[in-house]
Amino acid sequence: MKANGTLYENVARRISGLIESGTWRAGDRIPSVRALSRELEVSISTTLEAYRLLEDQGFIDTKPQSGHYVKARCSADAAQRPRVARPPQDPTSVSVNELVMTILSEGHDPETVPLGAALPNPALLPARKLQRKISAVLRRRPEITCTYGMTAGDPELRTQIARRAVTAGCTLDKDEIVTTTGAQEALNLCLGATCKPGSLVAVESPIFYGILQMIEARALRAIEVATDAGEGISLAALDSVIKKNRISAVICMPNFNNPLGSLMPDEKKKDLVRLLGARGVPLIEDDIYGEIPHGLARPRAAKSYDTKDLVLWCSSFSKTLSPGCRVGWVSGGRFARAIEELKFASTLATNTLSQAAIAEFLAHGGYDHHLRGLRRAAAHQVGSVIQAVRRSFPAGTRIASPAGGFLVWVELPPDKDSLKLHRMAARAGISIAPGPIFSPRRRFRNCLRLSAFFWNERVDRAIDVLGQLAQRA
Amino acid sequence: MKANGTLYENVARRISGLIESGTWRAGDRIPSVRALSRELEVSISTTLEAYRLLEDQGFIDTKPQSGHYVKARCSADAAQRPRVARPPQDPTSVSVNELVMTILSEGHDPETVPLGAALPNPALLPARKLQRKISAVLRRRPEITCTYGMTAGDPELRTQIARRAVTAGCTLDKDEIVTTTGAQEALNLCLGATCKPGSLVAVESPIFYGILQMIEARALRAIEVATDAGEGISLAALDSVIKKNRISAVICMPNFNNPLGSLMPDEKKKDLVRLLGARGVPLIEDDIYGEIPHGLARPRAAKSYDTKDLVLWCSSFSKTLSPGCRVGWVSGGRFARAIEELKFASTLATNTLSQAAIAEFLAHGGYDHHLRGLRRAAAHQVGSVIQAVRRSFPAGTRIASPAGGFLVWVELPPDKDSLKLHRMAARAGISIAPGPIFSPRRRFRNCLRLSAFFWNERVDRAIDVLGQLAQRA
Repeated sequence: MKANGTLYENVARRISGLIESGTWRAGDRIPSVRALSRELEVSISTTLEAYRLLEDQGFIDTKPQSGHYVKARCSADAAQRPRVARPPQDPTSVSVNELVMTILSEGHDPETVPLGAALPNPALLPARKLQRKISAVLRRRPEITCTYGMTAGDPELRTQIARRAVTAGCTLDKDEIVTTTGAQEALNLCLGATCKPGSLVAVESPIFYGILQMIEARALRAIEVATDAGEGISLAALDSVIKKNRISAVICMPNFNNPLGSLMPDEKKKDLVRLLGARGVPLIEDDIYGEIPHGLARPRAAKSYDTKDLVLWCSSFSKTLSPGCRVGWVSGGRFARAIEELKFASTLATNTLSQAAIAEFLAHGGYDHHLRGLRRAAAHQVGSVIQAVRRSFPAGTRIASPAGGFLVWVELPPDKDSLKLHRMAARAGISIAPGPIFSPRRRFRNCLRLSAFFWNERVDRAIDVLGQLAQRA
Repeated sequence: MKANGTLYENVARRISGLIESGTWRAGDRIPSVRALSRELEVSISTTLEAYRLLEDQGFIDTKPQSGHYVKARCSADAAQRPRVARPPQDPTSVSVNELVMTILSEGHDPETVPLGAALPNPALLPARKLQRKISAVLRRRPEITCTYGMTAGDPELRTQIARRAVTAGCTLDKDEIVTTTGAQEALNLCLGATCKPGSLVAVESPIFYGILQMIEARALRAIEVATDAGEGISLAALDSVIKKNRISAVICMPNFNNPLGSLMPDEKKKDLVRLLGARGVPLIEDDIYGEIPHGLARPRAAKSYDTKDLVLWCSSFSKTLSPGCRVGWVSGGRFARAIEELKFASTLATNTLSQAAIAEFLAHGGYDHHLRGLRRAAAHQVGSVIQAVRRSFPAGTRIASPAGGFLVWVELPPDKDSLKLHRMAARAGISIAPGPIFSPRRRFRNCLRLSAFFWNERVDRAIDVLGQLAQRA
C-alpha cells in the first residue's frame, strides 16, 4: 500500500489492485461497505469515500439496494489491453509534422468534436480564481509587464515549484529549476542540452508526437523502445538499446505516458534511473500528467531516485491550471546551467505576469483542492470514454486502462487503418489522433488516441459514430 | 526629403542632414525660426516643432535671447565615428554564452547602474494602459487563460500587425504572420527554417549577441560582414561573401543595428534585397528597433522590397510596450509554414492573454501617440549619453551617431580593453556590454555598448566613472 495517499485513497487502491490482478472479476459483487470496514479496520465513512472514488474511476458500479459490482472495463482480461509494440531497434529520422498540424488545426474548430489534440477542457480549470490572482499581481506590481523576467524564471514561482516537488518525492533547490514557455519548451531545451545534431535519443513507443517533432527539428535520430500500456517502458529493451547504441538521452513519461496512460511502478522507476545512471545516460522525464492520477496521491517522479544529477524533470501547469499562460519548468540537474543558456537563446525569458499569478495560485489558491476535483473528473471521464468505446467499437478492439491523465489509447483489430478513420471522422466533424503520429516509423497504424478532457452527450454520440466508422476503416 | 514623415519631422531631418554633412559645424549659429520658415516656406510653428525635435535629438542647443547652435556631438567629423571593422571573411563557430549570461545577471541587480543589457526603462512604457487592456480582455473573455492559443498566433493580433506593417511599406496577409515568444523566438525559428546544422549564416559585424547565441545553440557557423555605423552592412563585402561561400541565410538589422544604431538608406535596402534575391539567399530582417527612430517617421523595412518571398521580417513589442509579455512576430514569406511547425515543436503557442491585450492596445490604446513620446525620449537620452561619453572618455574615443533605438556604440583607443573595463565597472556597480560579445571572433576588444534606456544623474555620474576607468583599461 502506498504510504503517501490519504487513507480512503489507499483503501481504493487496494481494491482496484485486487480487481486489476483478477481476484475480483467483471460482474463480481464486492464486499459491502460494512464488511470491508471491519476487514480493513477503517471507518465506514472511509470505506464509503473509497467506493465513491472507485466509482469515479470506473472500477465499480453501485446498484441501490443491491451492492457494489466490478465493472466490465476493469476485468483483468489482459488480452483486452493494447499489445506491447516490439519496434525494430534501429535509429530512424523523424517526420510527422504535416499530419500533426492538421490535427491541431481541427482542435481549434468549435464545430469539431475535440477527441484529437489533448486540449484541456476550460470548464475543468479554475479560470476565475486565476483571473483574480492575475488582477492581484497587477495591482501589487503594476510594472510587472515592463521588465524582462530573469531567464531562469520568477524566483517566487521557482520556490513554489521546489516546495511542491516534495509530493513527488523530490528535494530540489529552487536554483536548479528553470521556468519555460510550457513543458514543450522545457523538453526542447533538455534535448538541446543533452544532444548534438545527429545524436540518438531513445523514446517510448508510442510517444507524444510533440517530442518527435522536436527530435525532427533538431536533426536528431530516434530509437523506439517497447512500452507496456500498464507499466511503461521495457527496461530489458532499453538496456539492449543502450548497449548496442550510443544514446545521448532517453525521453520517458513514467507517470501516465501520452498516449498510453501507463504508470511505471516506483521500483521500476528506481531501476530505470539506476540503469541509465550506471551508463551516464541522461533521462529526460516528461511529467506533465504527474499531478493527474486517477484519484490517488501523486505518484513519485523518477527524478526522486536521481543520485547522479542525470535526470531532467519537466512539467508544466498547462493541463492543470492554464494552457494559455504557457508556463512550464524543468529541474535540469547537471544540465541546469546549459538549459538556462539555451533558454536565453530560444525565448529569453518566460512571461512575467503569468509566472507571478501562478506562483500566487500555488501559494494561496487552493491548488491541491482544485487538483482533487480534477483527478476525480479525469477518472470519471476516462472511464466514460472507455465504456463508450467498449460499447461501440468493433469486436477485437483493445483499450488501455490509464492510471492517470485524460487520454485513452485504443487498438483496433489489425486490419483497421486509423489514418483512414481519421479522414472519415474529420468529415463527420470528429477529431481523433491516429496512431502513426506517435511513432517515428509511423507504426500503430491500427491504433488511435482519444482525448477524454471533454465528456458530454455530444462526445458520447461522437464515439458511437467513430465506432461505426471504425467498422469500415 | 523623406515623404512619409510629418512636415516638421521633414524639416528637422533636412537640418540634421546639413549638420551631419558638415554644412553647419559645431558651434555654428543656425538660422532663426523666422528666417528658416521663410526660406522653407513653412509655418513658424512647424519650424519651432522642428527645432524642438532637433534639440531632443541632441543636434542643437537653444540659448534664450540668442538663438540656436549646433552642438559638439553633431559635428560632421567622420573621423570621430567608430571605424568599420573589416573582419576576416571565413566561417567560425560561435561561443559567447558565458560572458553574456554574466552581463544579463548584472542587469537584474537593482544596485547596478544598468548600462549593459538592453533592458527597457519601465518609466517609458505604458504600464497602466496595458494593464487596463489586460483587465478588459479578462472581463470579456474570462476563459482566455484556459485554452492553448493557435500556434500561428491570435488572429486579431496578427490582423493588427498586418495593418501596422503598412507604415513600414509592407503589404502583408495576416496568414503570413506567426506570433512568437518575443523577437528572440522569431529569429531563432527563422534560423531553424532556413538552416541545417553546420549551415553558414552571414551576420553584421558587430551584431546582437543573442543572435550569436542562437547560431551557437543550433550548431551553425557564422561569417562576419563589415558593417558601417552610419549605413549598415557593406553590400560589397556581403556580395563577396556570398560568392565565395554557400550562405544559408543573412541576418541583418537594416533599421538601427544593435549595437551600432545604423540606419540603412532605403535605396540600399532595395539593393540588399535584390542582391540576395538574385542568389536565392533568405534575408532574416531583425526590425526590433524599427518603431523607435529618433523622432522621424518609421523607416521602411527591407521586407517592403521583397518580391520573392525571401525576406523573413521579425520584430516584437518588447522594446515599445512590454518586455514581460514576451510577444513578438515574424512574417516569414515562403518559410511561414515551416516556422509555424517549428514553433509548435519549440513552445507550441504564445501566451493568449498577452497577445489579446496587445492586440487591444494596438487597436484602441493610442500606440502611435505612445511611440511619438518614446521616440523623443530615445533621441533625447541617446544624445545625453553621447554627450556624457564625449565629456568623460579618453581622447581618441569614437562614438556612433545612432539614428534610432536606445543604444550607443563606443570605440575606445586601440590599446584599451573593454573586457577589463567591464570587470572594473562591475566592481564599481556599473554594467556595460563589452565589444567582444558582439562578434563570433570576439573582435571589438576596444569597443563597448552603452544602453541609453535610462537617463538620470546616476547614469550621468556612472558615465563619468566609466570614463575614468577607461583611462586605465
